[in-house]
Amino acid sequence: MYHHVKQLMYTVRVDVPDPRFGKMLLEQFGGANGELAAAMQYTIQGINCEDIARKDLLMDIGTEELSHLEVIGTLTRMHLKPCKKNREAAEADPLIALVGGGGVNLNNSQGNPWTADYLKISGQLEVDLRSNIAAEARAKIVYERLIEFCDDPGTKDTLQFLMTREITHMKAFMTALDTMGLDPLQIGNLEPTPSTVRKYFNDSTGVGQDGAEDARGPWNQADDIEYVEAPARLEAQVTQQQVEREINRAAGR
Amino acid sequence: MYHHVKQLMYTVRVDVPDPRFGKMLLEQFGGANGELAAAMQYTIQGINCEDIARKDLLMDIGTEELSHLEVIGTLTRMHLKPCKKNREAAEADPLIALVGGGGVNLNNSQGNPWTADYLKISGQLEVDLRSNIAAEARAKIVYERLIEFCDDPGTKDTLQFLMTREITHMKAFMTALDTMGLDPLQIGNLEPTPSTVRKYFNDSTGVGQDGAEDARGPWNQADDIEYVEAPARLEAQVTQQQVEREINRAAGR
Amino acid sequence: MYHHVKQLMYTVRVDVPDPRFGKMLLEQFGGANGELAAAMQYTIQGINCEDIARKDLLMDIGTEELSHLEVIGTLTRMHLKPCKKNREAAEADPLIALVGGGGVNLNNSQGNPWTADYLKISGQLEVDLRSNIAAEARAKIVYERLIEFCDDPGTKDTLQFLMTREITHMKAFMTALDTMGLDPLQIGNLEPTPSTVRKYFNDSTGVGQDGAEDARGPWNQADDIEYVEAPARLEAQVTQQQVEREINRAAGR
Amino acid sequence: MYHHVKQLMYTVRVDVPDPRFGKMLLEQFGGANGELAAAMQYTIQGINCEDIARKDLLMDIGTEELSHLEVIGTLTRMHLKPCKKNREAAEADPLIALVGGGGVNLNNSQGNPWTADYLKISGQLEVDLRSNIAAEARAKIVYERLIEFCDDPGTKDTLQFLMTREITHMKAFMTALDTMGLDPLQIGNLEPTPSTVRKYFNDSTGVGQDGAEDARGPWNQADDIEYVEAPARLEAQVTQQQVEREINRAAGR
Amino acid sequence: MYHHVKQLMYTVRVDVPDPRFGKMLLEQFGGANGELAAAMQYTIQGINCEDIARKDLLMDIGTEELSHLEVIGTLTRMHLKPCKKNREAAEADPLIALVGGGGVNLNNSQGNPWTADYLKISGQLEVDLRSNIAAEARAKIVYERLIEFCDDPGTKDTLQFLMTREITHMKAFMTALDTMGLDPLQIGNLEPTPSTVRKYFNDSTGVGQDGAEDARGPWNQADDIEYVEAPARLEAQVTQQQVEREINRAAGR
Amino acid sequence: MYHHVKQLMYTVRVDVPDPRFGKMLLEQFGGANGELAAAMQYTIQGINCEDIARKDLLMDIGTEELSHLEVIGTLTRMHLKPCKKNREAAEADPLIALVGGGGVNLNNSQGNPWTADYLKISGQLEVDLRSNIAAEARAKIVYERLIEFCDDPGTKDTLQFLMTREITHMKAFMTALDTMGLDPLQIGNLEPTPSTVRKYFNDSTGVGQDGAEDARGPWNQADDIEYVEAPARLEAQVTQQQVEREINRAAGR
Repeated sequence: MYHHVKQLMYTVRVDVPDPRFGKMLLEQFGGANGELAAAMQYTIQGINCEDIARKDLLMDIGTEELSHLEVIGTLTRMHLKPCKKNREAAEADPLIALVGGGGVNLNNSQGNPWTADYLKISGQLEVDLRSNIAAEARAKIVYERLIEFCDDPGTKDTLQFLMTREITHMKAFMTALDTMGLDPLQIGNLEPTPSTVRKYFNDSTGVGQDGAEDARGPWNQADDIEYVEAPARLEAQVTQQQVEREINRAAGR
Repeated sequence: MYHHVKQLMYTVRVDVPDPRFGKMLLEQFGGANGELAAAMQYTIQGINCEDIARKDLLMDIGTEELSHLEVIGTLTRMHLKPCKKNREAAEADPLIALVGGGGVNLNNSQGNPWTADYLKISGQLEVDLRSNIAAEARAKIVYERLIEFCDDPGTKDTLQFLMTREITHMKAFMTALDTMGLDPLQIGNLEPTPSTVRKYFNDSTGVGQDGAEDARGPWNQADDIEYVEAPARLEAQVTQQQVEREINRAAGR
Repeated sequence: MYHHVKQLMYTVRVDVPDPRFGKMLLEQFGGANGELAAAMQYTIQGINCEDIARKDLLMDIGTEELSHLEVIGTLTRMHLKPCKKNREAAEADPLIALVGGGGVNLNNSQGNPWTADYLKISGQLEVDLRSNIAAEARAKIVYERLIEFCDDPGTKDTLQFLMTREITHMKAFMTALDTMGLDPLQIGNLEPTPSTVRKYFNDSTGVGQDGAEDARGPWNQADDIEYVEAPARLEAQVTQQQVEREINRAAGR
Repeated sequence: MYHHVKQLMYTVRVDVPDPRFGKMLLEQFGGANGELAAAMQYTIQGINCEDIARKDLLMDIGTEELSHLEVIGTLTRMHLKPCKKNREAAEADPLIALVGGGGVNLNNSQGNPWTADYLKISGQLEVDLRSNIAAEARAKIVYERLIEFCDDPGTKDTLQFLMTREITHMKAFMTALDTMGLDPLQIGNLEPTPSTVRKYFNDSTGVGQDGAEDARGPWNQADDIEYVEAPARLEAQVTQQQVEREINRAAGR
Repeated sequence: MYHHVKQLMYTVRVDVPDPRFGKMLLEQFGGANGELAAAMQYTIQGINCEDIARKDLLMDIGTEELSHLEVIGTLTRMHLKPCKKNREAAEADPLIALVGGGGVNLNNSQGNPWTADYLKISGQLEVDLRSNIAAEARAKIVYERLIEFCDDPGTKDTLQFLMTREITHMKAFMTALDTMGLDPLQIGNLEPTPSTVRKYFNDSTGVGQDGAEDARGPWNQADDIEYVEAPARLEAQVTQQQVEREINRAAGR
Repeated sequence: MYHHVKQLMYTVRVDVPDPRFGKMLLEQFGGANGELAAAMQYTIQGINCEDIARKDLLMDIGTEELSHLEVIGTLTRMHLKPCKKNREAAEADPLIALVGGGGVNLNNSQGNPWTADYLKISGQLEVDLRSNIAAEARAKIVYERLIEFCDDPGTKDTLQFLMTREITHMKAFMTALDTMGLDPLQIGNLEPTPSTVRKYFNDSTGVGQDGAEDARGPWNQADDIEYVEAPARLEAQVTQQQVEREINRAAGR
């Protein structure tokens, strides 16, 4: 059950409204890594969760994200308001101008409607926590980019607050995962096949025009890793030899 | 800013879990007329609203819908849980079974992801309130249909509660609209063209196989209505006469 | 069964093509409140409708909206045509320029494809008519905003015609609803629970930074309304008291 | 401008309603190859078209498809009607049952909402006609499959009518394309590069488990075709030789 | 099974990065007629195909399209890179700038996510080949339009290569279809109804404001075609006569 | 540049085709956590990546996922084939039956079309690797659930292979992240605000009907964490006190 208080979680201040920046801000209101996505992902994971302690964690953070949704929505609203009356501002985001009358809606920065396809909810706690760690990392980098594109001090303050909270949440989810007592590679119950899990297939080879090259690194050269040449390449290889053999045979060699 | 308390707004009881009914219930969790749609529509209208009193109304009801989302989510979760282990249950909703492990996600009753395209948010209060009245009416009828498809007394109790609240909200939105002091047909500021607004075009004529027929009613026969035969039909008519004239001319008549 | 005559329902005139405005016009061709949405919503409601008289109304207006779709499509086409050859015009709407060669397609003003998720079709007449009243109100306000962003007299004429027709339709749907003989709050057959339907929950409280405050109005203070403090807030309250009691106990008070 | 007459283009008869088959029929009402897709594709191409004669063709067929939409909608409605009251029928299509009250909506056979992404509209006539030929072929095969899954004689009659019309339209579009006076490979104005257009790359080689094999046919062995071994395979080949050379060098060979 | 070599299929060169053009290029990376759509359409048709020779054709071209996807992706990446740091560039495509950090993603030129709704896969070879011919024609015209909007010689070279390959593929699919030994109008097995297939309905009549008129052409006037006046128009006609008759009767004439 | 060899990466065997299970398998062909999503996510990250060594890793695994796509597609095709002819099988997945003729398409287990909204591509390597670790964890659990719902030994073998590879990839991405030399909480360049990052807000309190309760755990009680009572709750609290004060004042206390 929810209660709403009208005070914002973070007081929002906009010195100069900038509709083009408002359009960018929509990314964190109605976009893939935005606050509604976070609120819904954690809250619904929480509804499904049977680990009482981590269920509380999911609800704590899911609820905080709802408060963030309100903060970013209010901030974005202040930047987009000129879209209602000003033709040039309206061109920045015609959907907001025409359909929303300058008000926010659950679109991203290009006008795509928010979709539950953004959510990663698995019903398996060690999986959900990994999805959440990644989600927080993505949200953090989007806020960082917004701050870098912004000159308005009031707006930057709010974005800095929201960006910071992503790191808080990322850490909480990491701790919740680390303290589950699972091996880092244990997901669910079924064991991987030992001989297959060892193999690293070198499926991309050669040299690219931008300096791309075939590389070795800790991820493909440890003791417990079997480095295998690309099976499709070897298959192509063999077939080529057969072709040559047949050509030679045909040529009487 | 939001706070969450773990007590549900309505205590949920399921006597016999029924995964096929759980799939139906998803309609009100992640569907077009469901609780998230209601919560988001009213809350975002509230963020955009500049009428202080009605802004409070929108936030009051928007917040209540979040609490309903949790209620219907919890109820649906209880019905879908067998999808995790039971193959036949899983077939009822493979997306819930495979991706969600039997947990709820923001899908509707056919597995479509929730989308902000469901929302009607216009930034014009007299428009938004009409959208809300219609939204509540739609939600009411979906709950009614769910109740009619349901045999489980516990489930029916919860659905009756949620259905009832739609009527409460519908009435509140109607009152808020009626007390705005606007003519029922006033939307925005621009006036319709008087001569054009009077015309009712009879664009569908004739008799259909299921008894459909051309009808008159209060909507097309009042004093201030000018009933006009379908312009496309008249246009076709004239052209037909021309064709006949040409045929006659060709035949030397 | 349909017949098409090539004369437009309203003669379209564009004095100066404006691709950026053409992009805006797409909102009423392929957008959420546009003419296809209206045509499909009413026509499909009509196919499903069993009230012969109102079925005719739905088909009359549904058909007129198809004629409007052609009008707005032709108008938009004239504004977007420069996108085919002119790079700067093409940047206004790359999708129209590259995929459509400057021709219209069923996108909205931000390039989102039209989707049936825009439609509200319930199979319950008193619900559908409410959805239609709201749909007409939304379409009216979008046309009004388009007119306000437009300087071209020919274009404004057409938009004024289309905007006016929305009011005609809105009135017809209102009349059709009012003459059904139903109580304004009767939706379907199941009755709401009397004790529950009376309650108005004050779920949003306090004071916001933009002057938002907790308000009373006719929607929450009539004789038949029971005004209830937010249950989540009261729940939080009680818990807080328990916490304090425990603190006191621990402190030996 | 459109006019509607209530008589259907083809009288519909259903002997025994079959909700599961009704769900299948939705594919041609609101699906990718269905009647709305056809109506919109041809009509919008027609609005954009500047070849007067073929514009008329596009409008003729586009309008006929609207009449088909009404026919398939009425047929589908008759099969789905039991979804309103009957729980088992409702399980066949919960979206139709719950949201539509047993009425049709613009969904496909799995409940996906119709989307303009189904449409292929290019603003280039020789391209649009090819898209239309393909669209008619797809619609034909879907109707054929529906007929094969159907036992109801009345339903089969209607489907046979609709299937037949696809062939009529396919032929008309083929004739319209053939009589444009263009080389079959001429699309737009820019010429392909002669040396590049001749090359056929054998990018898939070897033998598959189901009998798949590397094949030659008229499409890769005519006089004006240069058959080229897969460039990626050759590139992989060379690299492999380099690897072997280095292995040999390392081994002192 | 696939192998990747890092050398691109066509060496990409960009003289001056142009983020607004990069946004346009996305159309062929993640758009409806782009390289992923082609790769997936042909490859999945190939997986489903039981004609061994044409299955190889589908896999050959499907694989080449994957190599094209990499080429267009690399080219687009080079044009969009300034979006990461430059605010003005970022405004050209906020989604790429904020979510992608200037990197490509599977969006089209307006930021819509790629969807499998773009694909036409029927499981019927003579249908799939027609869909592919049309798909290649569409891709050709989009590349042509991109070339016309482009001033950068390096970029034009790559686009010319990709455009050319569409014609190669179009020809291969045409040859593969022509050599199947089917009548051009044979799709599947069920025969159309002879009397119905002959009829051409003149469903759009009259004269439009832009010179549109009712036209005859080879597609509606051959010996095996029965040209039929629009049935809805005739129906409207008859009804009108009845109305007149009744008026006359009422008037005592 | 890609090459395809027709031998599958893993030989597929189906003992008894099971269309209902085939529908489930579609989840890993065209679903959110399926093989196309994996292939595209890693490959496009690879195109955008500027760390040469990890770019190779992304292309290696991205390419392997394409080979998996072919494996799961072939397996699914074998299970769905009866949908072409058999009515009961067709009812399991009408979209596959009617549109695909029993062949696979890029739908998930409920018929939703694949969408790029499934992808998480950020252009920031430490973020992308986290998204990939989570993606592999999700894919692993879906394969595990498929295995648990499956009785066919041949099918289980293939699924076990694919499930195992997810763990291999998960480990490789983890190693690639761990060896980047970054603090686990470092994402991008901007630092979080120290005083704000420390705060854990207890936004969900009380006791739920299913045993949910307010919990403490390592994620909210370490030395560097400041545990803060829910700000919205405290705000509500204060307001309540004010209300009480006013009541007391009114009562003359």
